[in-house]
This record gives sequence, structure tokens and C-alpha cells, in this order.
Amino acid sequence: MQKKKHIHTSDKINQNHQIPQSRGDATPSIGSASIEDAVKLIRSIAPDTKIETRYIDESDGYTLGAPVVSKYDIPGFDRSTKDGFAVCAADTQDASPHSPVRLTFSGSIQNGFSPSHTLSRGTCMTIATGGALPNCSDAVVMHEHAHLNGSCVEISCPVSPGDNIIRRDEDAQAGKILFPEGRILRPQDIGVLAGFGICTVQVRAMPIIGILSTGPELVPADGRPSRGEVRETNSYLISALCRKLGAVPNRYGIAWEGSTDLSNMLCTAVSECDAIIISGGSAHDERDRTAEVISKHGAILLSGLSISPRKKMVIGEIQGKPIIGLPGHPASVYLLLLLVVSNLIQVMKGSVTHGLLKEFGIAGIDIKAHPDREYHIPVRINENQIIPLSRKAGLISLLTHCDGIIHIPQGSKGVKKGEILEVMDLTRIRSPNHSPVHEK
Amino acid sequence: MQKKKHIHTSDKINQNHQIPQSRGDATPSIGSASIEDAVKLIRSIAPDTKIETRYIDESDGYTLGAPVVSKYDIPGFDRSTKDGFAVCAADTQDASPHSPVRLTFSGSIQNGFSPSHTLSRGTCMTIATGGALPNCSDAVVMHEHAHLNGSCVEISCPVSPGDNIIRRDEDAQAGKILFPEGRILRPQDIGVLAGFGICTVQVRAMPIIGILSTGPELVPADGRPSRGEVRETNSYLISALCRKLGAVPNRYGIAWEGSTDLSNMLCTAVSECDAIIISGGSAHDERDRTAEVISKHGAILLSGLSISPRKKMVIGEIQGKPIIGLPGHPASVYLLLLLVVSNLIQVMKGSVTHGLLKEFGIAGIDIKAHPDREYHIPVRINENQIIPLSRKAGLISLLTHCDGIIHIPQGSKGVKKGEILEVMDLTRIRSPNHSPVHEK
Repeated sequence: MQKKKHIHTSDKINQNHQIPQSRGDATPSIGSASIEDAVKLIRSIAPDTKIETRYIDESDGYTLGAPVVSKYDIPGFDRSTKDGFAVCAADTQDASPHSPVRLTFSGSIQNGFSPSHTLSRGTCMTIATGGALPNCSDAVVMHEHAHLNGSCVEISCPVSPGDNIIRRDEDAQAGKILFPEGRILRPQDIGVLAGFGICTVQVRAMPIIGILSTGPELVPADGRPSRGEVRETNSYLISALCRKLGAVPNRYGIAWEGSTDLSNMLCTAVSECDAIIISGGSAHDERDRTAEVISKHGAILLSGLSISPRKKMVIGEIQGKPIIGLPGHPASVYLLLLLVVSNLIQVMKGSVTHGLLKEFGIAGIDIKAHPDREYHIPVRINENQIIPLSRKAGLISLLTHCDGIIHIPQGSKGVKKGEILEVMDLTRIRSPNHSPVHEK
Repeated sequence: MQKKKHIHTSDKINQNHQIPQSRGDATPSIGSASIEDAVKLIRSIAPDTKIETRYIDESDGYTLGAPVVSKYDIPGFDRSTKDGFAVCAADTQDASPHSPVRLTFSGSIQNGFSPSHTLSRGTCMTIATGGALPNCSDAVVMHEHAHLNGSCVEISCPVSPGDNIIRRDEDAQAGKILFPEGRILRPQDIGVLAGFGICTVQVRAMPIIGILSTGPELVPADGRPSRGEVRETNSYLISALCRKLGAVPNRYGIAWEGSTDLSNMLCTAVSECDAIIISGGSAHDERDRTAEVISKHGAILLSGLSISPRKKMVIGEIQGKPIIGLPGHPASVYLLLLLVVSNLIQVMKGSVTHGLLKEFGIAGIDIKAHPDREYHIPVRINENQIIPLSRKAGLISLLTHCDGIIHIPQGSKGVKKGEILEVMDLTRIRSPNHSPVHEK
């Protein structure tokens, strides 16, 4: 299982960004890594998951861990694609509506298993769509161009060899690669595999992602917060997104009691999972605690991002397993999961896909940007009109209206109403139209 | 549980299309219903599934069976969105960089549960992002605009009431509808629900879809076909698509032995499932058998479609349960599942969504059409370039390259290369770029 890592990328980013740049006591330290840097790094450190055999009926969304090769010629026999008459094409060359060719009717081909027939020159047999052509027959004349008259069939239109048939290996040749390694299986692919007699596939196991939350202000979602406390949201958000991205979430709960608690929980998670996501408390000292604990057991590879608004993200490694520290605000967590963590899961699963797919939409209003900065903005999509959502930090309900993310690169002054934009979106399920609460 | 049926639509279609129009012995009988007619009919006969309670962590993709209402004000206290100082905004009105206002430092607010503080005029307290504002405080001054100097804090910028805070009910007010009935839950919604302390939701149960195959030429996918036989593909395709659409597939295998066999299997399936899909054999008499068996136990409501290429589809009803008869060719099955059956599952689940979402792409080549006909064409999408796939009947491998479906309405002569088109797509996972086998 050869790793396709680009270690130099990791090393370079490590050099540039390992030491967070402090901007004074009170401001969180902000690195200068871009989202692109973070994605490169995370793709370079993602470990492969093991290869497992799965029944095709339970393989939708899995990534092939080995190419799928056809064992047989498919369909395996010359097959009619029309209801009509199996003929030797050469016998029909002089046929026309005014001067039909007459062939001797020599019986019917049954669909399904039937004894092997051989067609003599000057004869024909009825055949249904899907039927196996008799030997020495090389084409089918459609019913519309043939008329059975006693023991004789009148053909009013010539056919060429191969007309209205599928050749015995036209769907697939034995030994041909049907699907390459790295292909994500879709429902239609599973149908194809069944049709080709391939009922099990070698796929990458789903990566197991450990999920931890930190913050003294957190209570469980079904708890009752006192003044100053809030419900823990991120582990639910991260779990559901991991499942959507084809990973298995494994929750470890909330680390309340500072570094020792977090440290112990992290060690357990590292021993049981393929990668770990820690979502941090909202306060400054809480964010630093995550980095401190990762450093204690492994190494910090990236700290801080240069995007707007500032996102505190930590990428580290413990025992070869990626550790991602995310901020506390659910909207930031959502954004970084889609932009960065989605890549981790893709690489671990061996997928050739890079990031999430984009679709087009039209800017519903002017979207201003400062040319010095790069923006990733959560948006609503309403009949292809893109409306940016207000980004008041800490509002959970922002996510209710979030349908995707747009990117405004550094150097741009923004986008005018009516311009075509690319939107990154995970679910393609739109929030309802009548929820303008957070529009600006 | 009030049904929102439009029975008149069903009745109308029933009247118009109940009797298939025969075009002679050899040609399959073709009705004149459009895809739109079929969708209207199927939406009108779809029964609701029951409502069940689910833990939010297992509710992704489910449709709400009742509105979700906030039980509390969220966050429940005025909350800081910045690291800084909690103040009375009025105390800062005269502040400027050259003439800072001096406030008495009166301690720190800890994040998480802490005793209730009250701020006196002329004083301030340090507060972190997420902290609960003390009583009588109505704004936060960011650290950047404040300097702690012994027992005194110098404020260099005025704030207004509400600056840098979230009000106690700004995220949600107790009693407010957070999500309406019919909303499909997404990962981000599950995060929001957790944050609002809602850990269970009322959702529509997944519909159970019975799946039957007919055809004397079929062998199971893991069987070994003899000459003239092919592997049963459609039940795998339909199962995987049902799961993707949020339904539970229930397979009943292959009806080999003609009408009696099919009739018995169909009765069992009707007693156990919410709707049934029968994929027919490829031959003419086989297709008629499905309609005959449905008629025996219930009623045929629609038979045949006017789209190109001709698709033989039967819609019926037995004991109030929809029965869909599909053709045998997997590519036709795929197309009709996406165009028509997806609507059945959506309505059964109570979703407000209508059909599959569309995205934009650019025609990669000229696509010709006959103005007399309506087309639904399977396509590949390669970096937003849309390439129609060849449609040779019976080739299973067509599906390997199929990324979506385009619609060319009646009256159109087709689409020119470079024109923008809408594509309907279920998975948004693209087939690999290097598989030009079926391009034309």
C-alpha cells in the first residue's frame, strides 16, 4: 500500500507556519497560511485507510481500493436491440419498399435460455429485444420493415452487419478495466457491476474520525445551561458532516477540566481513530490549550489562517494521525470542515476527487471585498440567486440558512449583482425561501 | 394527517391514458403521457409515510413531520462576540484615540458558569468571546481599542448599545418556529438543533419500496448466464437509488415463471411495502405481463410515455399503494427513476422539494433534436462541459459514464455547442475524464 504523499509540501508549510505569529497579548495569534496551504498540508499528512471487501449492494459512496476488471465478455452473445427478424445482412441488400426481398421464415428465437440456432442463407427468424442472435445471423430487421406472409417474410429495407444488435463484447471485454482505483461508486455504477457479474468490490474502509469538544462554557446538547453556559453544538455538526463525507464519527464528549482532561481524552481518541477533530472553546486561552496539548504528544504543523474573518485553525500530528483543531463558532467549524477537512477524508478514502464540487449561481446583490484579503463567505441560494449571509460571530442560526460557500480571491474588490459565481455546496438541499432573517 | 392530493389530476390522466394506443401487433403500445403527466399522477397517488421520533444524530436527510419550535431564548443571556471589556456604552461616547475615556477596572468575567455580576457606571470588566455580559452592561469594547493601565482602562473608541454582543434572544426566541414541516434536515441543521437543545425530532419514516424483476432471460447477478441469458441488474440499481433518495429498498427477486409467479410476488410485496417498483423484461410480451398483473389486483392509471426514445412505463395502484412498472433496459430505468420515481419518494416522505435539483453546464457539442419530440438525454459532465451519451439500447456500460440528464422540450431543434444548459443530477460525483467509449 504505497503512500502517495508530497512530503516536501508538508515540510515547506511546516517551516513557514510552525511558529504562530503573535500580535500582542490580547489578540489570538494568527498565522499567514491560506486555505490552499492548509489543504495541501492536510492532503500530504492524510493516512490511507485499509482496504476491505464489500458486497456491491452496500458499496454506494465508497472509493475503490483496486481497479475493477471485467471477468467476462458482456453480454457474451450477439444480442438484439429491437423486436424484429434476425437475418444475414447480405440477404437484404436489394430490399426496398417497392421491391421487398423475400426470406423464408424459419421459426422464433425465445428470450432467455434456448438451444443454439443456426440461420441458413435466405432465411430469417423472429427475435425480441434482448434475444440471442442465431449463428450466421449478423443483423436484425425491425418489425416496421418486415411483413410475415405465410411461410415468407417480406423485407422492405436493407440492413448492414451489426444493425440493431449489440456484439458479444460490446458492453465489456473480458480483462477490460471497468472502474479505476479511486473511483467513488454511485448507484448507477452498482447497477453496472451487477450486470457484469461483479458482486463484491475492494474499497477503502471509511475513516474513523474522533471528535472532541473543549470549553468550560459547554453543556451537553440535552443539558440545561446556566447563565454563561451554552449547549455543545459542534460534535453534532461534525458527526453529521463526517457521515455525509463518508467517514465514521466517534464522539469523545466535552473536555471541561483544562489540559489534563483534554490530554487524556486525546490519547484515547488517537489510539482508537484514524484522525481527530477538536473543536475549541470560544475564548482565547481555550484555543491555545488545544495547541499546547497537541504539542505535548506530537507536533503542530500549521497554526492560524490568513482568511477573513480570521479563523484559528491548528493542524498537527500525533503518532502519524492528523489532529485538527477548529474554532468554537459553529459557522466557522462548518466552513473549515467543507473547505479543509473534506480533503482529509477524501485522501484517507483514496478518492481522486479534490475538494467539493462547485456549481454556478448568480450574485443576488453586490458583494464587496477588500482586495488585501481572501474571503470564503457562507451564502443562501434561492433559485440560483446567491445571497451572502451576515456573519455575526456566535449566531448558531446562521447555519440554518447556509446553502454553500463562495470564494472571493485576494486582489478582488468583490462581485457585482448579476455576475456568475461558483458555489461550493455539500448537500444541494436548499434552505426554505421564506427565511430572510440573516440576509443583509 | 391530512393528505394533500390533487385527485382531479389523477382522474384526468386516467381518462386520457388508461387505454394504451396500439400501433399494430409487433410494436409495443405507446401512450401519449408526458413525463410531466407521469410526475403529476405519481405525486397525487403517493401515500404519506408515518411520523416517527428520531434522535437528531440519526436524522440527516430525513424530512420533518412537524415544525420544530424553539423551547428557549437562545443564547439565553447577552453574550460577547469579542475578546475585550464589557462596558455601559453611554460611558464611552466621548472616547477618541487622542482623548481616551478612563473607566475603573472592576474584574474579569470567566467563561462558563459564573456568579451574576453587575456593572456600575464608570467601570468595566474583561470579557472573552462567548462570555456572559454583566447586568447593566450593554456593549463590549474590543481589546484593540482598550488599554489596561493599573486599576484603570483607557477606551480609545466609543461603542453603541449592542456593539460586539449577541442579545439573549437574538439567535432564537422561545416559541419561534426554527424549521417548518417538510424541511429536509442537513448536517448544519443538526448542529443548530443541538445548539438549541432539541435532541429529538418528529420525522417522516423512510418509505419502504418493494423491488421486483421480471424476465425469463434473467439470472441473478452472481449467477452464470447461459447463451441468451443476462444478469439481473435493475434491482441493484433501484436499491442503491432508493437509498440515495432516502427510501428503504426491499428486494423480492426475479419472477421467472410468468404471470402467476409475478402475481404472487406482487401480492406479498404490496402487503409489506409502501410502494412497488417492477422492472420488466426487455421483450414485448413481458412488458404487457406487468400491466396485466397490476390490472388483476388493482388499476392501471397510466401506460406509456411520449418521450424519446419511447419508454414503456406503467403506473398503477393496488390497495392504495403505487405500483410502478419500468422497462428492462437499465439506462431507461435510471432515467425514469430520476425523472419520475424520485417524486414518489419525495412526496411519501412529506418533502416540499419537487424533483431533483438542477445545475448549469455548457453544451460541449451541438445536440440535435426533432421539434415534434421531447427529449431527456443522459450526459457526461466534464468540467461543466456537457456531452450527451450514445443511447444504444441494452448497453449497461452507458451508466458508467452517466453524470446527469438534460431536458430538451418539444418545439426545440436542439442546442448549439457553448449554450448554457440545465442538468439534473443526483450524486454530483463525476465519472472519470478518460472514458470516451460512448461519446458520439
